[in-house]
Amino acid sequence: MKVAILGVGLIGGSIGLAARERAGAEVCGYDPDAGACEAALELGAIDTRAADIPGAVAGAQAVFAAAPVGVLSEVVLQALAHAPSDCVISDVGSTKLALEHAREDRRFIGGHPLAGAETAGVRHARADLFDGAVWYLTPSRMTDETLYERLSGLVECLGARPTAIAPDAHDRLMASVSHLPHVLANVLVAQAIGAFEREGVPPAAGPSLGDAIRVAGANTAIWTDIYLSNRTALVEAVEEILQRLEEVRDSLTRADSGALAAWNERADAARRSLLR
Amino acid sequence: MKVAILGVGLIGGSIGLAARERAGAEVCGYDPDAGACEAALELGAIDTRAADIPGAVAGAQAVFAAAPVGVLSEVVLQALAHAPSDCVISDVGSTKLALEHAREDRRFIGGHPLAGAETAGVRHARADLFDGAVWYLTPSRMTDETLYERLSGLVECLGARPTAIAPDAHDRLMASVSHLPHVLANVLVAQAIGAFEREGVPPAAGPSLGDAIRVAGANTAIWTDIYLSNRTALVEAVEEILQRLEEVRDSLTRADSGALAAWNERADAARRSLLR
Repeated sequence: MKVAILGVGLIGGSIGLAARERAGAEVCGYDPDAGACEAALELGAIDTRAADIPGAVAGAQAVFAAAPVGVLSEVVLQALAHAPSDCVISDVGSTKLALEHAREDRRFIGGHPLAGAETAGVRHARADLFDGAVWYLTPSRMTDETLYERLSGLVECLGARPTAIAPDAHDRLMASVSHLPHVLANVLVAQAIGAFEREGVPPAAGPSLGDAIRVAGANTAIWTDIYLSNRTALVEAVEEILQRLEEVRDSLTRADSGALAAWNERADAARRSLLR
Repeated sequence: MKVAILGVGLIGGSIGLAARERAGAEVCGYDPDAGACEAALELGAIDTRAADIPGAVAGAQAVFAAAPVGVLSEVVLQALAHAPSDCVISDVGSTKLALEHAREDRRFIGGHPLAGAETAGVRHARADLFDGAVWYLTPSRMTDETLYERLSGLVECLGARPTAIAPDAHDRLMASVSHLPHVLANVLVAQAIGAFEREGVPPAAGPSLGDAIRVAGANTAIWTDIYLSNRTALVEAVEEILQRLEEVRDSLTRADSGALAAWNERADAARRSLLR
């Protein structure tokens, strides 16, 4: 199988490594950054490099667009324009509604692996990055069944668990389970640093704060695009968390130990079912 | 040096291990749970066990009260009543204002190591638990200088960085940098599980959500006490985070990419200065 990867960073590079090692695929990579392609070749993440998107997708059975959300739509449309008629085209972007045009094409299926790291770049790519991770696929009513099977099988081969979900449901879900955690990390780190300054002690993060702010200030270019592209759902998610926080504040103000204990027990149960 | 430990769980047990290994101390432990004392003896966290608090603190040069916040005040007062006149008495509780009575005694200095784990109990105790961790000490105007030096030196010997702070400043600081992260983890995990249910897909946490909810639903008995004992400062911290979230929501509503990018950059800078 020939696989094309458009954008060889952490995710694209890891797909390349895993596709070569585990699916025996021949991987062709394209990246506007020549240095990234060079590194991907050296690291064995791709077999060959192409000078442009048409060159990369020529003869491919599967294409993964792994470019930043801001340019993803354009990359996907170019891939669709030049890829063979029996080729499945997917992406790995954090929001799915932005690719609305592409969904009219039977070869396109949106995708989103729940994997990544605070590190970026192909030098951090790993063949096992997707092991056990959920990989959302967002087929539309236009999607070709055979191509869906091919993509789903390939994703499984990379070590992930393909999970079908509608594009709008995906974006609403991500607002609460991925974008909101980043927002909370950002507001928390600002408040924490302000508190250290106010109390006049050097900043020092204990284990709970350290974990809570790990993703704070993630790559600004990428994340500003993500926040904006999913802002309708994200505003709703922020409204919901505001309400939840107001309830906690009210329990605290009333010194309502019963309500606080019950709330904490529910959080414990929810954490267990999420991390099991 | 003879050290007494009142409450041999994760923190008390780790103090015992480190004090024996690194300070060559003779450690006597007391715990109302006989099984915990038995395990502490087996693991080498204490040299001897006492039947009660007076027995444990007899002849001690330093006492660490490592009981849950809800009973800590009583444990500290008993220790003060029975410990020698040249003995320093400290605790490891997450809030410091609750021990107001003890502060009238020149031998008492509140303490709080920024260490811990989601695991509890003496079986998870480690001699290196405090390595490099900040350990807040809250001397009052009554505190004996010589006893402060002894405690500070001992804490350093355990591997930690003793840092002096006033009790009220400590509690305000912890509201934002420790208790609030737990509150955010709790509200986030509830919202996430609700979102999975609403969208009809099985719950699955990506790396950012996994880190963000790690401390959600921490030990209910302990944390209800912490939330209540520091509720004045915590309500203020929640009010501040509500305001910060409302600002983000407004930037999103306006699709203000400049404001979002600047906010994210500030979060990045704050994270770097906190985790350096």
